[in-house]
Amino acid sequence: MTRRRKIYEGKAKILYEGPEPGTIIQYFKDDATAFNAQKKGTISGKGVINNRISEYVFTRLSHIGIPTHFVRRLNMREQLVKQVEIVPIEVVVRNVAAGSLTKRLGIEEGTPLPHTLLEYCYKDDALGDPLIAEEHIACFGWASQEEMQDISAMAIRINDFMSGMFAAINIRLIDFKLEFGRLFDGDFSRIILADEISPDGCRLWDMDSGEKLDKDRFRRDLGGEVEAYQEVARRLGLLPEEGDSAVLDLGEHRAKKGK
Amino acid sequence: MTRRRKIYEGKAKILYEGPEPGTIIQYFKDDATAFNAQKKGTISGKGVINNRISEYVFTRLSHIGIPTHFVRRLNMREQLVKQVEIVPIEVVVRNVAAGSLTKRLGIEEGTPLPHTLLEYCYKDDALGDPLIAEEHIACFGWASQEEMQDISAMAIRINDFMSGMFAAINIRLIDFKLEFGRLFDGDFSRIILADEISPDGCRLWDMDSGEKLDKDRFRRDLGGEVEAYQEVARRLGLLPEEGDSAVLDLGEHRAKKGK
Repeated sequence: MTRRRKIYEGKAKILYEGPEPGTIIQYFKDDATAFNAQKKGTISGKGVINNRISEYVFTRLSHIGIPTHFVRRLNMREQLVKQVEIVPIEVVVRNVAAGSLTKRLGIEEGTPLPHTLLEYCYKDDALGDPLIAEEHIACFGWASQEEMQDISAMAIRINDFMSGMFAAINIRLIDFKLEFGRLFDGDFSRIILADEISPDGCRLWDMDSGEKLDKDRFRRDLGGEVEAYQEVARRLGLLPEEGDSAVLDLGEHRAKKGK
Repeated sequence: MTRRRKIYEGKAKILYEGPEPGTIIQYFKDDATAFNAQKKGTISGKGVINNRISEYVFTRLSHIGIPTHFVRRLNMREQLVKQVEIVPIEVVVRNVAAGSLTKRLGIEEGTPLPHTLLEYCYKDDALGDPLIAEEHIACFGWASQEEMQDISAMAIRINDFMSGMFAAINIRLIDFKLEFGRLFDGDFSRIILADEISPDGCRLWDMDSGEKLDKDRFRRDLGGEVEAYQEVARRLGLLPEEGDSAVLDLGEHRAKKGK
Protein backbone atom coordinates (compact mmCIF):
# COMPACT_ATOMS: atom_id res chain seq x y z
CA MET A 1 0.00 0.00 0.00
CA THR A 2 1.33 3.42 -0.86
CA ARG A 3 1.02 6.03 1.85
CA ARG A 4 -1.19 8.84 0.72
CA ARG A 5 -3.24 11.46 2.41
CA LYS A 6 -6.98 10.96 2.75
CA ILE A 7 -8.70 14.24 1.89
CA TYR A 8 -12.31 13.32 2.49
CA GLU A 9 -14.44 10.29 3.19
CA GLY A 10 -18.02 10.45 2.03
CA LYS A 11 -20.89 7.98 2.15
CA ALA A 12 -19.87 6.02 -0.95
CA LYS A 13 -16.39 7.28 -1.84
CA ILE A 14 -13.04 8.22 -0.36
CA LEU A 15 -10.89 10.96 -1.89
CA TYR A 16 -7.08 10.75 -1.63
CA GLU A 17 -4.40 13.16 -2.77
CA GLY A 18 -3.42 12.27 -6.32
CA PRO A 19 0.08 11.63 -7.65
CA GLU A 20 0.44 15.16 -9.03
CA PRO A 21 -0.81 18.54 -7.80
CA GLY A 22 -4.30 19.21 -9.03
CA THR A 23 -5.24 15.52 -9.09
CA ILE A 24 -7.35 13.39 -6.76
CA ILE A 25 -7.84 9.65 -6.46
CA GLN A 26 -11.50 8.72 -6.13
CA TYR A 27 -11.98 5.37 -4.34
CA PHE A 28 -15.40 3.68 -4.69
CA LYS A 29 -16.67 1.91 -1.54
CA ASP A 30 -19.34 -0.78 -1.30
CA ASP A 31 -21.09 1.21 1.43
CA ALA A 32 -24.65 2.22 0.65
CA THR A 33 -26.71 4.79 2.51
CA ALA A 34 -30.21 6.08 1.99
CA PHE A 35 -32.64 8.60 3.48
CA ASN A 36 -29.85 10.99 4.44
CA ALA A 37 -27.73 8.15 5.92
CA GLN A 38 -30.48 7.00 8.30
CA LYS A 39 -30.29 3.64 6.52
CA LYS A 40 -26.87 2.07 6.07
CA GLY A 41 -25.66 -1.11 4.44
CA THR A 42 -23.30 -2.67 1.94
CA ILE A 43 -23.84 -3.72 -1.65
CA SER A 44 -21.08 -6.20 -2.30
CA GLY A 45 -19.03 -5.25 -5.36
CA LYS A 46 -20.93 -1.97 -5.90
CA GLY A 47 -17.77 0.12 -5.77
CA VAL A 48 -16.18 -1.89 -8.57
CA ILE A 49 -19.24 -1.61 -10.81
CA ASN A 50 -19.80 2.09 -10.13
CA ASN A 51 -16.14 2.86 -10.87
CA ARG A 52 -16.56 1.14 -14.25
CA ILE A 53 -19.97 2.62 -15.11
CA SER A 54 -18.89 6.12 -14.12
CA GLU A 55 -15.72 5.79 -16.23
CA TYR A 56 -17.88 4.68 -19.15
CA VAL A 57 -20.42 7.52 -18.85
CA PHE A 58 -17.90 10.29 -18.16
CA THR A 59 -15.73 9.19 -21.09
CA ARG A 60 -18.67 9.23 -23.47
CA LEU A 61 -19.91 12.57 -22.15
CA SER A 62 -16.48 14.07 -22.85
CA HIS A 63 -16.88 12.88 -26.45
CA ILE A 64 -19.93 15.14 -26.88
CA GLY A 65 -18.06 18.08 -25.38
CA ILE A 66 -19.10 17.93 -21.73
CA PRO A 67 -16.02 18.84 -19.68
CA THR A 68 -15.56 16.40 -16.76
CA HIS A 69 -13.12 15.81 -13.92
CA PHE A 70 -12.39 12.23 -15.12
CA VAL A 71 -8.79 11.49 -16.15
CA ARG A 72 -8.49 7.67 -16.14
CA ARG A 73 -9.42 4.57 -14.21
CA LEU A 74 -6.50 3.38 -12.08
CA ASN A 75 -7.74 0.01 -10.88
CA MET A 76 -10.91 -1.84 -9.84
CA ARG A 77 -11.98 0.67 -7.24
CA GLU A 78 -10.07 3.83 -8.09
CA GLN A 79 -10.02 6.51 -10.71
CA LEU A 80 -7.83 9.55 -11.17
CA VAL A 81 -9.75 12.81 -11.43
CA LYS A 82 -8.94 16.51 -11.63
CA GLN A 83 -9.11 18.42 -8.36
CA VAL A 84 -12.03 20.82 -8.35
CA GLU A 85 -13.85 22.99 -5.86
CA ILE A 86 -17.22 21.28 -5.58
CA VAL A 87 -20.21 23.61 -6.13
CA PRO A 88 -22.36 22.95 -3.02
CA ILE A 89 -25.43 22.14 -5.10
CA GLU A 90 -26.85 18.79 -6.12
CA VAL A 91 -28.56 19.02 -9.48
CA VAL A 92 -31.43 16.56 -9.85
CA VAL A 93 -32.70 15.97 -13.38
CA ARG A 94 -36.15 14.39 -13.52
CA ASN A 95 -38.01 12.93 -16.49
CA VAL A 96 -40.58 10.84 -14.60
CA ALA A 97 -41.95 11.43 -11.08
CA ALA A 98 -40.23 9.25 -8.46
CA GLY A 99 -38.65 9.52 -5.03
CA SER A 100 -38.94 12.71 -2.98
CA LEU A 101 -40.87 14.54 -5.71
CA THR A 102 -43.83 12.16 -5.43
CA LYS A 103 -44.27 12.88 -1.71
CA ARG A 104 -43.43 16.57 -1.87
CA LEU A 105 -45.88 17.43 -4.67
CA GLY A 106 -48.31 14.51 -4.36
CA ILE A 107 -47.59 13.03 -7.79
CA GLU A 108 -47.86 9.30 -8.34
CA GLU A 109 -44.59 7.47 -8.99
CA GLY A 110 -44.13 6.75 -12.66
CA THR A 111 -46.04 9.81 -13.92
CA PRO A 112 -44.12 11.29 -16.86
CA LEU A 113 -43.39 14.96 -16.13
CA PRO A 114 -44.78 17.55 -18.60
CA HIS A 115 -41.17 18.32 -19.40
CA THR A 116 -37.75 17.67 -17.88
CA LEU A 117 -37.49 19.21 -14.43
CA LEU A 118 -34.23 20.47 -12.92
CA GLU A 119 -34.17 20.60 -9.13
CA TYR A 120 -31.40 21.97 -6.95
CA CYS A 121 -30.53 20.84 -3.42
CA TYR A 122 -28.06 22.43 -1.05
CA LYS A 123 -25.30 19.92 -0.29
CA ASP A 124 -25.41 19.70 3.50
CA ASP A 125 -25.82 16.30 5.16
CA ALA A 126 -26.73 17.81 8.53
CA LEU A 127 -29.64 19.66 6.91
CA GLY A 128 -30.64 16.66 4.76
CA ASP A 129 -29.66 18.30 1.44
CA PRO A 130 -32.69 20.63 1.39
CA LEU A 131 -34.40 21.64 -1.83
CA ILE A 132 -33.43 25.15 -2.90
CA ALA A 133 -34.26 27.47 -5.78
CA GLU A 134 -32.01 29.61 -7.96
CA GLU A 135 -33.04 32.50 -5.70
CA HIS A 136 -31.29 30.84 -2.72
CA ILE A 137 -28.20 30.12 -4.82
CA ALA A 138 -28.00 33.78 -5.85
CA CYS A 139 -28.85 35.09 -2.37
CA PHE A 140 -26.14 33.10 -0.58
CA GLY A 141 -23.62 33.20 -3.45
CA TRP A 142 -23.29 29.41 -3.79
CA ALA A 143 -22.75 29.83 -7.53
CA SER A 144 -22.76 32.78 -9.90
CA GLN A 145 -25.54 33.32 -12.41
CA GLU A 146 -23.06 32.51 -15.20
CA GLU A 147 -22.07 29.27 -13.48
CA MET A 148 -25.74 28.30 -13.06
CA GLN A 149 -26.29 28.89 -16.77
CA ASP A 150 -23.40 26.52 -17.55
CA ILE A 151 -24.64 23.97 -15.01
CA SER A 152 -28.25 23.95 -16.22
CA ALA A 153 -27.24 23.82 -19.90
CA MET A 154 -24.87 20.90 -19.22
CA ALA A 155 -27.47 19.09 -17.11
CA ILE A 156 -29.97 19.24 -19.97
CA ARG A 157 -27.40 17.99 -22.51
CA ILE A 158 -26.30 15.19 -20.17
CA ASN A 159 -29.94 14.17 -19.73
CA ASP A 160 -30.47 13.99 -23.47
CA PHE A 161 -27.32 11.95 -24.02
CA MET A 162 -27.94 9.57 -21.12
CA SER A 163 -31.62 9.13 -22.04
CA GLY A 164 -30.46 7.94 -25.45
CA MET A 165 -27.68 5.79 -24.06
CA PHE A 166 -29.97 3.98 -21.64
CA ALA A 167 -32.84 3.74 -24.15
CA ALA A 168 -30.47 1.81 -26.42
CA ILE A 169 -30.13 -0.86 -23.72
CA ASN A 170 -33.85 -0.89 -22.91
CA ILE A 171 -33.57 1.19 -19.75
CA ARG A 172 -35.70 4.23 -18.97
CA LEU A 173 -33.79 7.08 -17.33
CA ILE A 174 -36.25 8.25 -14.66
CA ASP A 175 -34.04 10.77 -12.85
CA PHE A 176 -30.46 11.29 -11.75
CA LYS A 177 -28.22 13.48 -9.65
CA LEU A 178 -25.22 15.48 -10.84
CA GLU A 179 -22.50 17.43 -9.08
CA PHE A 180 -20.30 20.04 -10.64
CA GLY A 181 -16.99 21.60 -9.66
CA ARG A 182 -14.85 24.63 -10.38
CA LEU A 183 -11.61 23.84 -12.19
CA PHE A 184 -9.18 26.69 -11.49
CA ASP A 185 -6.63 28.02 -13.95
CA GLY A 186 -4.92 30.87 -12.17
CA ASP A 187 -7.56 33.36 -11.15
CA PHE A 188 -10.10 31.94 -13.56
CA SER A 189 -12.33 28.94 -13.10
CA ARG A 190 -14.74 27.01 -15.24
CA ILE A 191 -17.47 24.55 -14.40
CA ILE A 192 -16.90 20.86 -15.13
CA LEU A 193 -18.87 17.74 -14.29
CA ALA A 194 -17.57 16.03 -11.13
CA ASP A 195 -18.49 13.23 -8.67
CA GLU A 196 -19.82 10.08 -10.37
CA ILE A 197 -22.70 8.81 -12.51
CA SER A 198 -23.84 5.33 -11.47
CA PRO A 199 -26.93 3.43 -10.33
CA ASP A 200 -26.30 4.98 -6.89
CA GLY A 201 -27.47 8.36 -8.16
CA CYS A 202 -29.78 7.43 -11.04
CA ARG A 203 -33.20 5.83 -11.21
CA LEU A 204 -33.13 3.27 -14.00
CA TRP A 205 -36.19 1.20 -14.88
CA ASP A 206 -36.29 -1.67 -17.33
CA MET A 207 -38.42 -0.44 -20.23
CA ASP A 208 -40.51 -3.60 -20.50
CA SER A 209 -40.86 -4.92 -16.97
CA GLY A 210 -40.47 -1.62 -15.11
CA GLU A 211 -38.00 -3.41 -12.84
CA LYS A 212 -35.81 -1.05 -10.83
CA LEU A 213 -32.11 -1.37 -11.66
CA ASP A 214 -30.77 1.17 -9.15
CA LYS A 215 -30.33 2.08 -5.49
CA ASP A 216 -34.10 2.04 -4.90
CA ARG A 217 -33.69 -1.76 -4.54
CA PHE A 218 -31.62 -0.98 -1.42
CA ARG A 219 -33.76 1.96 -0.23
CA ARG A 220 -36.92 -0.15 -0.42
CA ASP A 221 -35.48 -3.52 0.66
CA LEU A 222 -36.36 -5.10 -2.69
CA GLY A 223 -33.28 -7.32 -2.67
CA GLY A 224 -31.12 -8.11 -5.70
CA GLU A 225 -29.08 -4.93 -5.48
CA VAL A 226 -25.85 -6.55 -6.68
CA GLU A 227 -27.61 -8.26 -9.58
CA ALA A 228 -29.30 -5.00 -10.62
CA TYR A 229 -26.04 -3.05 -10.70
CA GLN A 230 -24.40 -5.92 -12.60
CA GLU A 231 -27.28 -5.96 -15.09
CA VAL A 232 -26.75 -2.28 -15.91
CA ALA A 233 -23.00 -2.89 -16.37
CA ARG A 234 -23.71 -5.98 -18.47
CA ARG A 235 -26.10 -4.15 -20.80
CA LEU A 236 -23.52 -1.37 -21.22
CA GLY A 237 -21.05 -4.05 -22.34
CA LEU A 238 -18.88 -3.64 -19.28
CA LEU A 239 -18.94 -7.29 -18.25
CA PRO A 240 -16.61 -8.89 -20.81
CA GLU A 241 -18.64 -12.03 -21.39
CA GLU A 242 -22.36 -12.67 -21.17
CA GLY A 243 -23.08 -14.28 -17.84
CA ASP A 244 -19.72 -13.32 -16.36
CA SER A 245 -20.81 -11.97 -13.03
CA ALA A 246 -17.48 -12.39 -11.24
CA VAL A 247 -17.64 -8.72 -10.40
CA LEU A 248 -14.70 -8.69 -8.07
CA ASP A 249 -12.47 -9.95 -10.89
CA LEU A 250 -13.73 -7.33 -13.28
CA GLY A 251 -10.88 -4.89 -12.84
CA GLU A 252 -8.11 -7.44 -13.25
CA HIS A 253 -9.95 -9.10 -16.13
CA ARG A 254 -10.11 -5.89 -18.10
CA ALA A 255 -6.54 -5.06 -17.14
CA LYS A 256 -5.27 -8.40 -18.46
CA LYS A 257 -6.99 -7.68 -21.74
CA GLY A 258 -4.45 -4.91 -22.10
CA LYS A 259 -6.58 -1.83 -21.48
CA MET B 1 -78.33 38.81 7.86
CA THR B 2 -78.42 38.87 4.11
CA ARG B 3 -78.44 35.50 2.43
CA ARG B 4 -75.45 35.04 0.21
CA ARG B 5 -73.51 32.14 -1.14
CA LYS B 6 -70.33 31.09 0.62
CA ILE B 7 -67.69 30.34 -2.01
CA TYR B 8 -64.82 29.22 0.15
CA GLU B 9 -63.83 29.05 3.79
CA GLY B 10 -60.13 29.17 4.54
CA LYS B 11 -58.15 29.19 7.77
CA ALA B 12 -58.52 32.92 8.45
CA LYS B 13 -61.09 34.16 5.94
CA ILE B 14 -64.41 33.32 4.34
CA LEU B 15 -65.23 34.32 0.77
CA TYR B 16 -68.82 35.11 -0.23
CA GLU B 17 -70.31 35.99 -3.57
CA GLY B 18 -70.24 39.76 -3.98
CA PRO B 19 -73.15 42.06 -4.87
CA GLU B 20 -72.16 42.21 -8.55
CA PRO B 21 -70.64 39.67 -10.93
CA GLY B 22 -66.87 39.69 -10.67
CA THR B 23 -66.88 40.74 -7.01
CA ILE B 24 -66.24 38.83 -3.81
CA ILE B 25 -66.78 39.67 -0.16
CA GLN B 26 -63.79 38.79 1.97
CA TYR B 27 -64.74 38.16 5.62
CA PHE B 28 -61.92 38.20 8.21
CA LYS B 29 -62.22 35.63 11.01
CA ASP B 30 -60.50 35.64 14.41
CA ASP B 31 -59.34 32.06 13.83
CA ALA B 32 -55.61 31.56 13.89
CA THR B 33 -53.73 28.51 12.69
CA ALA B 34 -50.04 27.68 12.53
CA PHE B 35 -47.72 24.90 11.40
CA ASN B 36 -50.03 23.90 8.56
CA ALA B 37 -53.13 24.02 10.80
CA GLN B 38 -51.70 21.57 13.34
CA LYS B 39 -52.08 24.36 15.91
CA LYS B 40 -55.42 26.13 16.09
CA GLY B 41 -56.74 28.98 18.19
CA THR B 42 -58.43 32.34 18.24
CA ILE B 43 -56.98 35.83 18.47
CA SER B 44 -59.88 37.95 19.67
CA GLY B 45 -60.51 40.91 17.38
CA LYS B 46 -57.81 39.85 14.88
CA GLY B 47 -60.25 39.82 11.96
CA VAL B 48 -61.25 43.41 12.58
CA ILE B 49 -57.65 44.60 12.79
CA ASN B 50 -56.48 42.62 9.76
CA ASN B 51 -59.38 43.93 7.68
CA ARG B 52 -58.29 47.49 8.57
CA ILE B 53 -54.53 46.93 8.11
CA SER B 54 -55.01 45.13 4.82
CA GLU B 55 -57.27 47.92 3.56
CA TYR B 56 -54.60 50.44 4.55
CA VAL B 57 -51.70 48.60 2.88
CA PHE B 58 -53.56 47.65 -0.31
CA THR B 59 -54.84 51.22 -0.75
CA ARG B 60 -51.35 52.66 -0.39
CA LEU B 61 -49.86 50.03 -2.71
CA SER B 62 -52.39 51.00 -5.37
CA HIS B 63 -51.11 54.60 -5.04
CA ILE B 64 -47.65 53.47 -6.22
CA GLY B 65 -49.14 51.58 -9.13
CA ILE B 66 -49.46 48.05 -7.76
CA PRO B 67 -52.73 46.63 -9.10
CA THR B 68 -54.72 44.92 -6.31
CA HIS B 69 -58.03 43.13 -5.87
CA PHE B 70 -59.15 45.59 -3.15
CA VAL B 71 -62.25 47.65 -3.91
CA ARG B 72 -63.43 48.98 -0.53
CA ARG B 73 -63.97 48.04 3.07
CA LEU B 74 -67.62 47.22 3.73
CA ASN B 75 -67.69 46.96 7.51
CA MET B 76 -65.60 45.87 10.48
CA ARG B 77 -64.89 42.39 9.20
CA GLU B 78 -65.59 42.56 5.48
CA GLN B 79 -64.12 44.07 2.37
CA LEU B 80 -65.24 44.00 -1.24
CA VAL B 81 -62.63 42.66 -3.65
CA LYS B 82 -62.41 41.82 -7.33
CA GLN B 83 -62.90 38.17 -8.23
CA VAL B 84 -59.67 36.63 -9.43
CA GLU B 85 -58.33 33.19 -10.20
CA ILE B 86 -55.75 32.68 -7.46
CA VAL B 87 -52.30 31.66 -8.73
CA PRO B 88 -51.53 28.53 -6.67
CA ILE B 89 -48.24 29.95 -5.43
CA GLU B 90 -47.41 31.64 -2.15
CA VAL B 91 -44.68 34.22 -2.62
CA VAL B 92 -42.53 34.67 0.48
CA VAL B 93 -40.33 37.78 0.56
CA ARG B 94 -37.52 37.58 3.10
CA ASN B 95 -35.18 40.32 4.31
CA VAL B 96 -33.96 38.67 7.53
CA ALA B 97 -33.74 34.94 8.31
CA ALA B 98 -36.71 33.69 10.38
CA GLY B 99 -39.22 30.87 10.45
CA SER B 100 -38.87 27.88 8.15
CA LEU B 101 -35.77 29.27 6.44
CA THR B 102 -33.73 29.10 9.65
CA LYS B 103 -34.39 25.37 10.06
CA ARG B 104 -34.22 24.48 6.38
CA LEU B 105 -30.86 26.15 5.71
CA GLY B 106 -29.44 26.25 9.24
CA ILE B 107 -29.31 30.04 9.51
CA GLU B 108 -29.77 31.71 12.87
CA GLU B 109 -32.98 33.71 13.30
CA GLY B 110 -32.34 37.41 12.90
CA THR B 111 -29.46 37.06 10.43
CA PRO B 112 -29.89 39.72 7.73
CA LEU B 113 -29.90 38.02 4.32
CA PRO B 114 -27.20 39.06 1.82
CA HIS B 115 -30.05 40.39 -0.26
CA THR B 116 -33.82 40.07 -0.44
CA LEU B 117 -34.85 36.47 -1.08
CA LEU B 118 -38.02 35.48 -2.93
CA GLU B 119 -39.30 31.99 -2.14
CA TYR B 120 -42.22 30.23 -3.77
CA CYS B 121 -44.44 27.61 -2.16
CA TYR B 122 -47.11 25.53 -3.85
CA LYS B 123 -50.48 26.34 -2.28
CA ASP B 124 -51.69 22.92 -1.11
CA ASP B 125 -52.69 22.43 2.53
CA ALA B 126 -52.60 18.64 2.27
CA LEU B 127 -48.97 18.79 1.14
CA GLY B 128 -48.06 21.49 3.68
CA ASP B 129 -47.47 24.22 1.06
CA PRO B 130 -44.13 22.76 -0.08
CA LEU B 131 -41.26 24.95 -1.22
CA ILE B 132 -40.94 24.99 -4.99
CA ALA B 133 -38.66 26.63 -7.56
CA GLU B 134 -39.47 28.46 -10.78
CA GLU B 135 -38.59 25.18 -12.51
CA HIS B 136 -41.57 23.45 -10.85
CA ILE B 137 -43.87 26.35 -11.72
CA ALA B 138 -42.82 26.12 -15.39
CA CYS B 139 -42.90 22.30 -15.45
CA PHE B 140 -46.43 22.00 -14.09
CA GLY B 141 -47.76 25.18 -15.72
CA TRP B 142 -48.85 26.83 -12.45
CA ALA B 143 -48.00 30.23 -13.93
CA SER B 144 -46.50 31.42 -17.18
CA GLN B 145 -43.01 32.86 -17.37
CA GLU B 146 -44.53 36.26 -18.13
CA GLU B 147 -46.78 36.02 -15.09
CA MET B 148 -43.82 35.06 -12.89
CA GLN B 149 -41.94 38.10 -14.16
CA ASP B 150 -44.88 40.33 -13.15
CA ILE B 151 -45.20 38.55 -9.80
CA SER B 152 -41.52 38.79 -8.87
CA ALA B 153 -41.24 42.41 -10.00
CA MET B 154 -44.34 43.35 -7.95
CA ALA B 155 -43.09 41.41 -4.92
CA ILE B 156 -39.82 43.35 -4.94
CA ARG B 157 -41.63 46.71 -5.27
CA ILE B 158 -44.08 45.78 -2.51
CA ASN B 159 -41.15 44.82 -0.27
CA ASP B 160 -39.45 48.17 -0.85
CA PHE B 161 -42.64 50.11 -0.15
CA MET B 162 -43.61 48.12 2.92
CA SER B 163 -40.06 48.19 4.32
CA GLY B 164 -40.25 52.00 4.19
CA MET B 165 -43.76 52.13 5.55
CA PHE B 166 -42.91 49.95 8.56
CA ALA B 167 -39.52 51.62 9.12
CA ALA B 168 -41.37 54.91 9.52
CA ILE B 169 -43.22 53.44 12.51
CA ASN B 170 -40.09 51.79 13.97
CA ILE B 171 -40.94 48.29 12.76
CA ARG B 172 -38.52 46.04 10.87
CA LEU B 173 -40.13 44.07 8.05
CA ILE B 174 -38.51 40.64 8.45
CA ASP B 175 -40.53 38.70 5.87
CA PHE B 176 -44.03 38.42 4.50
CA LYS B 177 -46.26 36.31 2.28
CA LEU B 178 -48.11 37.45 -0.83
CA GLU B 179 -50.71 35.87 -3.08
CA PHE B 180 -51.56 36.96 -6.57
CA GLY B 181 -54.53 36.34 -8.83
CA ARG B 182 -55.50 36.53 -12.48
CA LEU B 183 -58.04 39.23 -13.28
CA PHE B 184 -59.80 38.22 -16.49
CA ASP B 185 -60.98 40.64 -19.16
CA GLY B 186 -62.47 38.46 -21.87
CA ASP B 187 -59.80 36.06 -23.02
CA PHE B 188 -57.02 38.12 -21.48
CA SER B 189 -55.87 38.16 -17.91
CA ARG B 190 -53.42 40.17 -15.88
CA ILE B 191 -51.79 39.55 -12.52
CA ILE B 192 -52.96 41.60 -9.54
CA LEU B 193 -52.20 41.39 -5.82
CA ALA B 194 -54.85 39.41 -3.92
CA ASP B 195 -55.50 37.90 -0.48
CA GLU B 196 -54.45 40.17 2.42
CA ILE B 197 -51.43 41.82 4.01
CA SER B 198 -51.58 41.76 7.81
CA PRO B 199 -49.59 40.60 10.85
CA ASP B 200 -50.95 37.09 10.07
CA GLY B 201 -48.66 36.83 7.05
CA CYS B 202 -45.82 39.20 7.97
CA ARG B 203 -43.01 39.05 10.52
CA LEU B 204 -42.76 42.48 12.13
CA TRP B 205 -40.17 43.21 14.81
CA ASP B 206 -39.94 46.38 16.87
CA MET B 207 -36.73 48.07 15.71
CA ASP B 208 -35.48 48.87 19.21
CA SER B 209 -36.66 46.01 21.42
CA GLY B 210 -36.85 43.32 18.72
CA GLU B 211 -40.29 42.46 20.11
CA LYS B 212 -42.39 40.37 17.74
CA LEU B 213 -45.58 42.14 16.60
CA ASP B 214 -47.02 39.35 14.48
CA LYS B 215 -48.42 35.82 14.39
CA ASP B 216 -45.20 34.37 15.80
CA ARG B 217 -46.61 35.40 19.23
CA PHE B 218 -49.33 32.81 18.61
CA ARG B 219 -47.07 30.23 16.92
CA ARG B 220 -44.63 30.31 19.84
CA ASP B 221 -47.10 30.80 22.71
CA LEU B 222 -45.56 34.16 23.59
CA GLY B 223 -48.91 35.65 24.61
CA GLY B 224 -50.06 39.20 23.91
CA GLU B 225 -51.24 38.44 20.37
CA VAL B 226 -54.17 40.86 20.50
CA GLU B 227 -52.00 43.64 21.91
CA ALA B 228 -49.32 43.08 19.24
CA TYR B 229 -51.81 43.31 16.36
CA GLN B 230 -53.36 46.41 17.98
CA GLU B 231 -49.93 47.98 18.35
CA VAL B 232 -49.26 47.63 14.62
CA ALA B 233 -52.66 49.17 13.84
CA ARG B 234 -52.05 51.94 16.37
CA ARG B 235 -48.65 52.87 14.90
CA LEU B 236 -50.19 52.95 11.44
CA GLY B 237 -52.69 55.50 12.79
CA LEU B 238 -55.59 53.09 12.49
CA LEU B 239 -56.68 53.36 16.11
CA PRO B 240 -58.17 56.85 16.26
CA GLU B 241 -56.87 57.79 19.70
CA GLU B 242 -53.78 56.79 21.60
CA GLY B 243 -54.70 54.13 24.08
CA ASP B 244 -58.00 53.37 22.41
CA SER B 245 -57.87 49.60 22.29
CA ALA B 246 -61.60 49.01 21.98
CA VAL B 247 -60.89 46.94 18.93
CA LEU B 248 -64.37 45.63 18.45
CA ASP B 249 -65.65 49.19 18.15
CA LEU B 250 -62.98 50.15 15.65
CA GLY B 251 -65.10 49.76 12.56
CA GLU B 252 -68.06 51.72 13.84
CA HIS B 253 -65.80 54.35 15.36
CA ARG B 254 -64.13 55.11 12.02
CA ALA B 255 -67.47 54.99 10.28
CA LYS B 256 -68.90 57.63 12.62
CA LYS B 257 -65.97 59.89 11.82
CA GLY B 258 -67.42 60.02 8.35
CA LYS B 259 -64.97 57.89 6.35
